[in-house]
Formats: sequence, structure tokens, C-alpha cells
Amino acid sequence: MTTAAPSADDFLTDFHHVATFGATAANGVDRQAATAEDKLSRDWFAGFVADRGWELRVDGIGNMFALIEFVPGAPYVLIGSHLDSQPLGGRFDGAYGVIAALHAAERVAADVGDSGGRATFNLGVVNWFNEEGGRFAPSIMGSSVFAGLMDENEMLRVRDLDGVSVAEALDAIGYRGDDPRPAVAGYAEIHIEQGRILEREGIDIGAVDSSWYTQKLDVEVIGEQSHTGATAMADRHDALVAASKVVLLVHDVTTKFVAQDGSGDDVIVSSVGRFTVEPNSPIVVARRVHLVADLRSASPEIVQAARDGLIADIAAIAKEHDIAIEVRDFDVRDIQRFPHTGVELVEKVAADLGLSVRPIRTMAGHDSVPMNRIVPTVMMFIPSVDGVSHCEREFSTDDDMVSGLGALTRVAWEMVHGALAEDAS
Amino acid sequence: MTTAAPSADDFLTDFHHVATFGATAANGVDRQAATAEDKLSRDWFAGFVADRGWELRVDGIGNMFALIEFVPGAPYVLIGSHLDSQPLGGRFDGAYGVIAALHAAERVAADVGDSGGRATFNLGVVNWFNEEGGRFAPSIMGSSVFAGLMDENEMLRVRDLDGVSVAEALDAIGYRGDDPRPAVAGYAEIHIEQGRILEREGIDIGAVDSSWYTQKLDVEVIGEQSHTGATAMADRHDALVAASKVVLLVHDVTTKFVAQDGSGDDVIVSSVGRFTVEPNSPIVVARRVHLVADLRSASPEIVQAARDGLIADIAAIAKEHDIAIEVRDFDVRDIQRFPHTGVELVEKVAADLGLSVRPIRTMAGHDSVPMNRIVPTVMMFIPSVDGVSHCEREFSTDDDMVSGLGALTRVAWEMVHGALAEDAS
Repeated sequence: MTTAAPSADDFLTDFHHVATFGATAANGVDRQAATAEDKLSRDWFAGFVADRGWELRVDGIGNMFALIEFVPGAPYVLIGSHLDSQPLGGRFDGAYGVIAALHAAERVAADVGDSGGRATFNLGVVNWFNEEGGRFAPSIMGSSVFAGLMDENEMLRVRDLDGVSVAEALDAIGYRGDDPRPAVAGYAEIHIEQGRILEREGIDIGAVDSSWYTQKLDVEVIGEQSHTGATAMADRHDALVAASKVVLLVHDVTTKFVAQDGSGDDVIVSSVGRFTVEPNSPIVVARRVHLVADLRSASPEIVQAARDGLIADIAAIAKEHDIAIEVRDFDVRDIQRFPHTGVELVEKVAADLGLSVRPIRTMAGHDSVPMNRIVPTVMMFIPSVDGVSHCEREFSTDDDMVSGLGALTRVAWEMVHGALAEDAS
Repeated sequence: MTTAAPSADDFLTDFHHVATFGATAANGVDRQAATAEDKLSRDWFAGFVADRGWELRVDGIGNMFALIEFVPGAPYVLIGSHLDSQPLGGRFDGAYGVIAALHAAERVAADVGDSGGRATFNLGVVNWFNEEGGRFAPSIMGSSVFAGLMDENEMLRVRDLDGVSVAEALDAIGYRGDDPRPAVAGYAEIHIEQGRILEREGIDIGAVDSSWYTQKLDVEVIGEQSHTGATAMADRHDALVAASKVVLLVHDVTTKFVAQDGSGDDVIVSSVGRFTVEPNSPIVVARRVHLVADLRSASPEIVQAARDGLIADIAAIAKEHDIAIEVRDFDVRDIQRFPHTGVELVEKVAADLGLSVRPIRTMAGHDSVPMNRIVPTVMMFIPSVDGVSHCEREFSTDDDMVSGLGALTRVAWEMVHGALAEDAS
């Protein structure tokens, strides 16, 4: 047998209930990592788990695991995503994947019981800590610590803009645990696409085959503070003027690279999201601007070429303004290829369910990327309306969410029964 | 008789002592209004006054007055400036004028006693609250409230970026008073120039004849939040990119106006000092930028032309990026002309002391500007090295400070004895 679909009504009721935690006036959520709003969603997750008698664990970086044991001592297939959001973010990014995973797990657990329990692995649902990184950088923190790619103690010392550390923030909401991390055999995640490819092509499910190459540039512009009224224009070393030119360079660099297939699709995207001015006084010429540029492409060579061009152009701006601009590479994330057997599994499941499917790349980072470094991982997308995310009008339809829930349930069932096990290292 | 000069040694000792309150590693001070560092300088001022048996008053907006009565019931000539600084500001801006005023007052008081007391007015030294406006906007707050140009209750409700109100901050340091404000007959202030005219021309004292016309533009750029990785470049409405273009427009607008005298001096200066990005997350395209542009010129027509040009250019940027940019005029300060008799008084005093002098305009705002609206006011400058201010390397020499102290002492003596009294309205 294979597993049946969970109840669409029960899932949608829970999804729309969780969207009330940190709800904003414009239909979004503001539920940043380890805030009071994040705690509400975590308490709800813990309640769901307790109601079903599953085991709950919280690890040292605040990841939450709901564990269902079919095979005593066997490792776990984990399914899940994250319940935290960006500031004034959307209801779907992350939360959809966690709530779908809880309902998928409930159905798989019932069916494993009914089928006489020939599962290979156990099943767990995970709510990863701080995928978004809006409050505490870097993003994808909890799953990266789990996968051994970031150091737990170093991450616990990361501070937000108010000086609160990850450790303090987790303690404050009661979610810094010390439970042992489960041994894992595989990982599956479903998420909104955050782009417009599935919507444009009318496809139900994206089977993610690889992630884009990404890197950030940490840029510090050091000018000189002076009086906005009394200082002659020629005597100023205005960090904000130079930094504004850097923002425009970062934005415009994408136009230098054009898709070879004539599609007009971006082959590189870039932007500056963090930008902090000091002293930020209305009558003081800025002394310092700190900004972070984000570059992403399917091609490491294109990112490298854009980065090199930016560094040269930024040096020219520094010279023109007679100020110092320091540029540092960080958060370089190589292309990850997801197992081909996982893409095939998604294609098979979709065909069984009558859903259309296509392979797709992810431009955004996800918890599945670090997990794919340690266990066979399946990543699926459902369509995003208008391709927007990290904003309040981020949207996916109930129908698409329910289709994705069905696919995740089947994938989890297959993985618990040994699919992809041959890909384990 | 006229008054003698105060002791240069005593003055310099006090000046360099006050520079230790909020001292920074690079020889500046960080002593923003109503902070713990500001309290240190206020306590020192109160101690100086108590040691000499003068009356101390603190009004409802935190202005401090040291009062010396020569003629019972007569109004006061006030001399002074402000002890608060910009964040990472200089030691001279404001503090020089207050400490010079205290020493000048001590000398004038002694000489009035020796001369048999034929003064016309009493003498007071004032430390105005929050001239800088770096923490609480607008600047020049205490003297503007005193002159009836700003409403005290409204100003007490102004909040800093951490949400602390002026009233709360003054209460926290114990300097929200309720003493009656002294009746005033005149005002004199000495300050660093903050430009390089006196230094370039080798002149000791500037006699300020007028202030520049100034206005600010409050600019709110409303884009749309989205994912820095997953959102196609064409689908973004990046508030930071549009706001960066506004910064460059504000900077470049000055080049459209050229000095008619061929001097190459600025006829208008402009800049953006405050610039705040939301949500300010490394992987989120910015939703909103709030910025404040500052425009100043000796000519109201030039400011108006620059403002009109900027508003048209900003509207074009909004259209290009399909985002909303709202621009609002505020903090418009008309040209103030200081009494010609005051300029003549400074010229006479300088001649008596063997100091060179020239009339000069102020591009920066000062407490003397609102005071000039209500009483005859004298404003003097001493040279600034390299013309820089609002920064740690702001500098004036001990010799120039002592020369200015001598001039202020004479001016105070003359005003206490009725100079400029015919200018009173």
C-alpha cells in the first residue's frame, strides 16, 4: 500500500490558525526568530505534538523535533521547514512546510500502523530555528548547525541590532533545549517557490534539482563626519553619498549578464538589503555606512565576474571620494545538487497523484540545502502568486497547498520505506 | 573703565577639563543631549555657579541659567551657548561658548563691583538644551522654546530613535526644572566658525551679520519588500535603490548654482544625514527608506530653486521605479540679520584688543538665531582649523580661544552697560 492524503480541511484550518501568530494588518506575519510571536507558533507546534503523543525534542540552537518511532533504534527521515518569518513577511514562507509536514506525518504514522509496520526508518517533523536571518545573521542557522556547517556556540553568541544574543533570545522564550539530536536517514521539505516559473507554466509541483550559487559582500564605507550646513561641499567625505553609489553599482551589475537562451530571465540577481548609517543625525554628514550586498546565480563564474567588477568599481568610488571602502567576501554558498533519485521520486509521486511537475532550481536558500550535505534530501515547491515573497502579499492558493501536502505525504511514506536510502553516504 | 581679560590659564584649564566629559578615543566628545555624559557637563556648570554664589535656574526644557544681579529687578544680558554635542562630535562646538561665557561673566561681575556698579542690566550665563538635535530633532530646541518659536510641551514629547522622550531623558538626569525664565535684555554668543573663511584670511574674529536660509525635506520612499534571491529583478520595487538615487540628486543639486563672484565658494550646500532602511535585513529587498535632506544658502531663491528641481527629479525616480516617494517641507528657517550695532560693537572691541575682524555669515544654525528674534543679539566666531566640525578632529587653537574670550568679555561688559539697548523692540 501507499499512504492516503491527509484531510485538506484539517490542514487548512491549522495553516490559517498559525497565520494568526504575529499577523499583520496587511495579511502578512511578523514572526522573527525567538520573538514572542515565534514562541506562539512554537507552543502551537509543541501542542500538536503532545496531542498526538509524539516525542518532542528541542536542541541547543532551538530546533524542534517531533519524533515518531516505527523501528526501534532506526534513524529518522525528517520532514519540515521553519515557522519564523521575515519582519513584515508572508504567511507561507516556511510555515507551510512545517504544517504540511505535521499533517503528512500524522497520516503516514496512521498508515504505517495499518500496514503492519514494515517501515525502514522512523519519521520526524522539524521546525528549524532562524531560517530567515532577518534578526540574527546568517540565515539558515538552525539547520546549518544541525548539519555541522556552523558552530553552535558561535551562533549562540550572534547578536541582533539591539545587542540581544541568540542564546539570550532563546532563553527568554524558553526554547534553548539540551535534548539529543535525532540520527537522520533523509530529509524532505516543501516550500513556496518564491518565483513565478510554476505559475507561468501552470505546473503544480517543482522538483528542486539544484540551488543557485550565492555569496555576500560585506561593505564598510568610512568617510568623515562633518556639519551638513557649515562644511564646504569640497571638504566633505560623505560616506552616504559613496555608499549610495555602491547600492546602484550592485543593482546595475545584473544588467551586464544576459540569458543565453533568449528567455530574458535573470542569470544573476543582486541587491543590498542591509544598510546602516552612522551617526544618522539630520545635520551631520555621515561618517560610516555598513551594507551587505547579496549576489546569486546558477553560475559561480557569473557571480565571480560580477563580484570582481564590483570590487574594481567600488575602489574607483573610494578614490573619487577620498574615503576608505572595505569589501569582504562572506557567506559563500556553493551550488548544491539534490539527488537525482529524489527528483525522480517527486516526479513519480506527482504522476500518481495526477499533478504536473517539472525540475526547478532554487534561487533562495532553504534548510534543505545544508541538510542535503549530510543526508539524501528531497525539496519540492508549490506555485507562488506573482512570484513575490518576504512580503505581506506573498500568496499561494489553498488548492496548491493541498496538492503539495499530498505530494509531501507520499514522499515521506516512500522515504520511510527506504526510497533514496541507497543515496546515503 | 572697561573690563579686563579673564585669566587665560583658568579658562583653558576648565575648557580642557570639560572636554573629558564624554571624551572619545580620537580627541572628540560624545555628549548628546540629556545623556549621562551631558549630565556630567551640567553638574560641572552647576558647580562653577555654586562656587561663585551665583543663582542657578533650570527651566522646563532643561536650559540652565547662572544669574548675577547688579541692578535689582532689571532684565538680564545672557551670554552662552550649549554643552551638548553630536554623536562622536568635537570638543569645541558649543562648549567653548559656554565656558568662555562663565569666565567672561566672572570678570565682568568683579569689574562691575570695582567700578561702583553703574550697570544698566544684569548678567546671566546660559547653557541651552539640545542645540545639536542629533538625538532629539529638531535642533536648537532649548533656545527656540525660550524664544517662543517652539512649543515646550510638544518638544517634551519628542522621542529619540529608542523611543525615549525629551521629558523622560531630562527627568532621568535630573535636569527638567520648573524655575522661572529670566527676563532678557540682550544675548551674546561666541562659537567656532565651522568653516574655513577666518583661517584662510588669517582673521581672529568673525562678526556674524546674518544667517543662511535653511530648509529640510522629509522624504519617505515606499517600495515593496521581497526576497533578495528569489524575486526577479524586474519584479522588484526596491526602496533602497530609489532612495540612493535621491541621495545623489540632493548631493549633485549644489553644482547647478555657481558663485557670481568667481570665488568658487559654495552658494548652496546640501546633504542627507539621516537615512533609515526597513526592514534592514540582509536577504530582504527594502520596503521603506526614510531620509532627511538639508538645504542651506544665503539666498532663499536658490534654496527654493534647488527644492523645486529636487521635487521634480524625485517624482521622475518614483515613476521610473513604480514606487511612491513622499516629500514634505519642514524646518524652514528664514535668513536672520543680526543688529548692525552689534557687528559694530564687535568691530570696536576687536580694534581695542588688537584683533583682526570681519563680518561673516553663518551657514550653521545657532542658539543666537532664535534669540535674535526676541532681543538684540551679538554673534562672534573664532577660526576653525580646516573648517571641519561635527567630528572628532574639529579643532581651534588655545590662542584663538583666548582671543575670543577677551572679545566676549568686552562685549558682555558693553551690553551690561547699555550697548545695543536702543535696538530692543
